[in-house]
Amino acid sequence: MKHITSQDIQEMKKVYRLNLINSCTGYKSANLIATRSKAGIPNVAVFSSITHIGSEPAMLGFVTRPLTVARNTYKNIKETSYFTVNHIHEEMIQKAHQTAAKYDEEISEFEKTGLEEEYLNDFQAPYVKQSEIKLGCKFLNEYEIKENDTLLIVAAIEHIYFDEGIQMPDGWLRLDDAGTVAVNGLDGYSLPSLLDRFHYARPGQEVRSFFSQKSN
Amino acid sequence: MKHITSQDIQEMKKVYRLNLINSCTGYKSANLIATRSKAGIPNVAVFSSITHIGSEPAMLGFVTRPLTVARNTYKNIKETSYFTVNHIHEEMIQKAHQTAAKYDEEISEFEKTGLEEEYLNDFQAPYVKQSEIKLGCKFLNEYEIKENDTLLIVAAIEHIYFDEGIQMPDGWLRLDDAGTVAVNGLDGYSLPSLLDRFHYARPGQEVRSFFSQKSN
Repeated sequence: MKHITSQDIQEMKKVYRLNLINSCTGYKSANLIATRSKAGIPNVAVFSSITHIGSEPAMLGFVTRPLTVARNTYKNIKETSYFTVNHIHEEMIQKAHQTAAKYDEEISEFEKTGLEEEYLNDFQAPYVKQSEIKLGCKFLNEYEIKENDTLLIVAAIEHIYFDEGIQMPDGWLRLDDAGTVAVNGLDGYSLPSLLDRFHYARPGQEVRSFFSQKSN
Repeated sequence: MKHITSQDIQEMKKVYRLNLINSCTGYKSANLIATRSKAGIPNVAVFSSITHIGSEPAMLGFVTRPLTVARNTYKNIKETSYFTVNHIHEEMIQKAHQTAAKYDEEISEFEKTGLEEEYLNDFQAPYVKQSEIKLGCKFLNEYEIKENDTLLIVAAIEHIYFDEGIQMPDGWLRLDDAGTVAVNGLDGYSLPSLLDRFHYARPGQEVRSFFSQKSN
């Protein structure tokens, strides 16, 4: 096995380090965050840091740098409190990746990429029409991560949209039925397929699959 | 499309809500966090909230509740500052899931699950031998997420181990070559395969693949 130390990491060239460190923590969620400024300009940008924060109340979080390419997203969220989270699917990966380009603030990435805006139930922020799972979120709080001046944004999940066919009777959304992708590093888009789903683990009991009688 | 509102979410039964909210944000990373208490008892537990925080310095974060099943992990990290992050691969998903069972504090999940401890370069915490990508980490800080009394743990990545064959010349680790899995919800384990990897996006330029001459 190759062994890389802190010292090695510090001495790496910037892009090499970005590629290694962004891929070494495993797969990341692949989502588009869409917002609309007070002036009415929509914005959409790819994010791989969206993660589950809690179910009761329903909340998600994501990490951002306020002054990088995500600055329009951040500014719009702070101005309006609202944003949407839209899954990226296999057919959309080029369009989704293109949202990472540094467009000027007055330009809508929707126009430039072919992603389509969709407004649902008078929500302030646009959804992405091509997404099969989409969330309407409201900003709750931000936490400054002092170690590198990033922010953890925490938000309430207020609306969830999805095709009924991908939901199991116990509430779970089967993401491979929606063709949702995952991100490998900064720029790799991967398509997962379900291996198995397991019942709640208990000491002294073998792990049991939802899909068969096999116990191991 | 099915539309679920805040009100619907509040009125759901607990397990249904857990399943829906944990799956609606997309795929999550699948890792085992391993620690060793001051008294020498090792601990290993599955986590799906590990995410990239920054590359310079190299840092990761994860969200935990200090008083749930993860309490041993948290206590050991606070006692010793050290922990490891170990990828979960296709052949390990049952063993990894079994670590979520509520074992007593003095019991090692390594013994109970068949996952093997491995100590590398005098690092205080054990690695998981079966993992093909593993990180040695040091606690840096914790942030209390007041909205639901969870903690964001932020840590430095001090050691990285992987098989050299999965790394591309630009530093990127190709996770499907390692057979790393992703988590769908609380209990679904999925195997991703790479669709494509794209060059840095620029305004007015078509997205370009790393793997071919095709531009779209």
